[in-house]
Amino acid sequence: MDRSKKIVRPKAITPRGFKDNFHSYLKKRDEVLEVVNRVYELYGFERLETPAIETVDALGKFLPDVNRPNEGVFAWQDETDSWLALRYDLTAPLARAFSQHRNTLQVPYKRYSFGPVWRDEKPGPDRFKEFYQFDADIVGSSSFIADAEMCFVVFDVLKELGFSVADYSTRISNRKILSGLVQAVKLADDTDLGDIELVVFRAIDKLDRLGLQGVESLLGKGRTDSSGDFTKGANLSAGQIDTIMSFLKIKDNDPYKALQEMGLLIKDSEIGQEGLGELKNITDALLSEGCSNPSFRIDPSVVRGLAYYTGTVFETELTTTTSSLGSISGGGRYDDLVSRFTGQKVPSTGVSIGIDRLVSFLHERDSKKEKGVVDVIVTVMDKNLMQHYINIASDLRAHGVNTDLYVGNPKDFGKQMKYADSRNATFAIVAGTNELKDDIVQVKDLKLGRKLSVDISSNEEWKEQPAQFPVKREELIEKILELLRS
Amino acid sequence: MDRSKKIVRPKAITPRGFKDNFHSYLKKRDEVLEVVNRVYELYGFERLETPAIETVDALGKFLPDVNRPNEGVFAWQDETDSWLALRYDLTAPLARAFSQHRNTLQVPYKRYSFGPVWRDEKPGPDRFKEFYQFDADIVGSSSFIADAEMCFVVFDVLKELGFSVADYSTRISNRKILSGLVQAVKLADDTDLGDIELVVFRAIDKLDRLGLQGVESLLGKGRTDSSGDFTKGANLSAGQIDTIMSFLKIKDNDPYKALQEMGLLIKDSEIGQEGLGELKNITDALLSEGCSNPSFRIDPSVVRGLAYYTGTVFETELTTTTSSLGSISGGGRYDDLVSRFTGQKVPSTGVSIGIDRLVSFLHERDSKKEKGVVDVIVTVMDKNLMQHYINIASDLRAHGVNTDLYVGNPKDFGKQMKYADSRNATFAIVAGTNELKDDIVQVKDLKLGRKLSVDISSNEEWKEQPAQFPVKREELIEKILELLRS
Repeated sequence: MDRSKKIVRPKAITPRGFKDNFHSYLKKRDEVLEVVNRVYELYGFERLETPAIETVDALGKFLPDVNRPNEGVFAWQDETDSWLALRYDLTAPLARAFSQHRNTLQVPYKRYSFGPVWRDEKPGPDRFKEFYQFDADIVGSSSFIADAEMCFVVFDVLKELGFSVADYSTRISNRKILSGLVQAVKLADDTDLGDIELVVFRAIDKLDRLGLQGVESLLGKGRTDSSGDFTKGANLSAGQIDTIMSFLKIKDNDPYKALQEMGLLIKDSEIGQEGLGELKNITDALLSEGCSNPSFRIDPSVVRGLAYYTGTVFETELTTTTSSLGSISGGGRYDDLVSRFTGQKVPSTGVSIGIDRLVSFLHERDSKKEKGVVDVIVTVMDKNLMQHYINIASDLRAHGVNTDLYVGNPKDFGKQMKYADSRNATFAIVAGTNELKDDIVQVKDLKLGRKLSVDISSNEEWKEQPAQFPVKREELIEKILELLRS
Repeated sequence: MDRSKKIVRPKAITPRGFKDNFHSYLKKRDEVLEVVNRVYELYGFERLETPAIETVDALGKFLPDVNRPNEGVFAWQDETDSWLALRYDLTAPLARAFSQHRNTLQVPYKRYSFGPVWRDEKPGPDRFKEFYQFDADIVGSSSFIADAEMCFVVFDVLKELGFSVADYSTRISNRKILSGLVQAVKLADDTDLGDIELVVFRAIDKLDRLGLQGVESLLGKGRTDSSGDFTKGANLSAGQIDTIMSFLKIKDNDPYKALQEMGLLIKDSEIGQEGLGELKNITDALLSEGCSNPSFRIDPSVVRGLAYYTGTVFETELTTTTSSLGSISGGGRYDDLVSRFTGQKVPSTGVSIGIDRLVSFLHERDSKKEKGVVDVIVTVMDKNLMQHYINIASDLRAHGVNTDLYVGNPKDFGKQMKYADSRNATFAIVAGTNELKDDIVQVKDLKLGRKLSVDISSNEEWKEQPAQFPVKREELIEKILELLRS
């Protein structure tokens, strides 16, 4: 054997953590995107699309749990050795775009964006490295109404998608209150608040995954996971940990009571009180008369992983099934993201809807209602009659009928019928020399055929059913349109 | 000055060769995508979406003019040192996806895909590193009807977008004919056809840019460009070059005459005659009775840059303006792309529409008809009345009116009006304590206001115009809906 001629074939496989999406899923996603789009425009947001690729500098490092540079993002060096990366969200690019175009954009700038974002993080069964987000943001507004509208749009989107208030729950908090708590337990004064806060934030951000016990360990001496790996803790004192844990356990259904309990723990911390005031304002707004029926509660354990948030933070979970679908939306206020570029403070707030989970759920729920793309398949009985078949297909398409002219090898007619079935087509047109001589075609009702083939047993019977009938060529279009309407 | 505290700000700028897209452009793109989507489905194609990222192995090296590995694509190594890359088109990923899912896909597999693709090539004023393609392909069909349908869909898309047959022109050829020509001028026999053909292909692919003279130089001793750089030529003999140049100059409007002239030059080359036969078949199909009025001619100079094409190739140019918009669509047959993965030949054909050029043209053409997102802006006269403004906005939105509740600093009312103008809003709602006490609001007709402010000179006159009028709060929604309808 001549080894030099051995052919090494590339593997036909998506990279780990990526997947292909097919027709019916994508059609369902279109529906969801359209709903979100409509709701965002109802609120006066306009669209922006930024490139997939940004400079690493512009994106900044705000991913949760990222200590090393470029960790969590797909990044590479270009020919000038500058680092480029795929966007990991739609907010960092917005801050870049707003700063770049600030002289021509109206302020407040209300924009929406959607599209894939990429994270080079450990994939899981339902966790991919490429996923779809649909964001709305207001850049240049410090109003609590702006924050409240971020919650309103999510309520409205879920309502439009057919969910009831019982199907979801929004949890709201404010990062300033947590800062206040850190001050109140005397972990830090104003000057070096940042670092310690980040450690506490990160511990709390793991609450979903590790539970209260896990967070408690991370605030204390550290935690050994099931694989035996040890994560260093924040080494807080028992009293400090107690206060933080009491804070995290506040879950009163009455938002004003929850605010009161939080107030008791943060004491007279200035930043904490500021956050408390903001949380009260947004609560008032969410409870305004005439608003979307809000389904929210104040929950201090919401911190949101991304490091750029500075105030209000919120998260919406779908709980429509016995098992929770988890977070499908989240956002908050990020007052410092634009000033990274411009040096000027531009208060901003935004929300991101994770489209994939929503679509997967709805796609599964509605899968029985699915319709194939193809209305009519024009089969090929005789290669020499191709011009006729082209003509029939062209005629049907001109009348808005989705038509598939069979372009596989036409020799085996049974294969054409199998193909028609696999495409879930509604009708097949069959015409040989005899039919065309008499100016007719045979129409097979494939939907009825499939139904009959389940109901009846013998092949003979099947052939006698009215699932196939002749139609005059000149009446074909009208007949098909009539049948498709019924 | 403490240098260690100097803040280095990231630059707010897209990487070179990338751009942001804004609302009205994107809305126009939506329209175009919808038209293409509808036409592709009329032909029975179903959607597929592959990830942005593929392994470099799976993508293969088919870009024009690429000799070095990874040239022209954005590529990087992952943590296992495997090379990943952004897709440079939608065809290479299709071949990978079809091979990966071939056990569950019906054959022929008719699929459409759209989305951005990325090429790390020199950007120009109208040439970006990220651009949008909308492809249709048939995998697993060797039928010339499949090739013809690739042209039909483009004709139909252009018709649906409002172009007439005079606005565009499709040029068609077949790579096998060029192979036949290479054989006929005795440049190569079958065994080492590949390499020499590629050199000739590449020279011809530069025809658009370099003209006949430039191609002639590249086939001969080589070519020095305006900057003084020298490109080595193929060193063909004068006779060989003459034949190739005669071939390239065939441009008869009658496709059958052009076929005849081509036949004379390729003589008895088997592969050449095969290509000629295919080109005749597709010509017959394109001239079929009842088809989209075809606007095409046979043009041997069409080769298409991508190296994976094996037979029919075609390209459509928009010539609707005095200066040609250039190629907006192209495609062809690639019978060997799937066999790279599977080892089995799977004949395939496809077309790609370059969305960006089309959209830019239509966006510019229709820019006067543009409408802003916002129907109504609810202004803020008095911060204490916020609950009322939220209520009005919420009410309007519930009735499908795109409503922007002002969330900037409300102190300067003039600024709110400027903001409303910059958003191109139709109406503004103004209500202070006096109005709300009487259960009315003021409606400002901003469109009329803008018109009047052009027509009249004095500020006093302006204020007396009916561009502002009071409406009862309970009649507001009905009134606005009525006004928006008119």
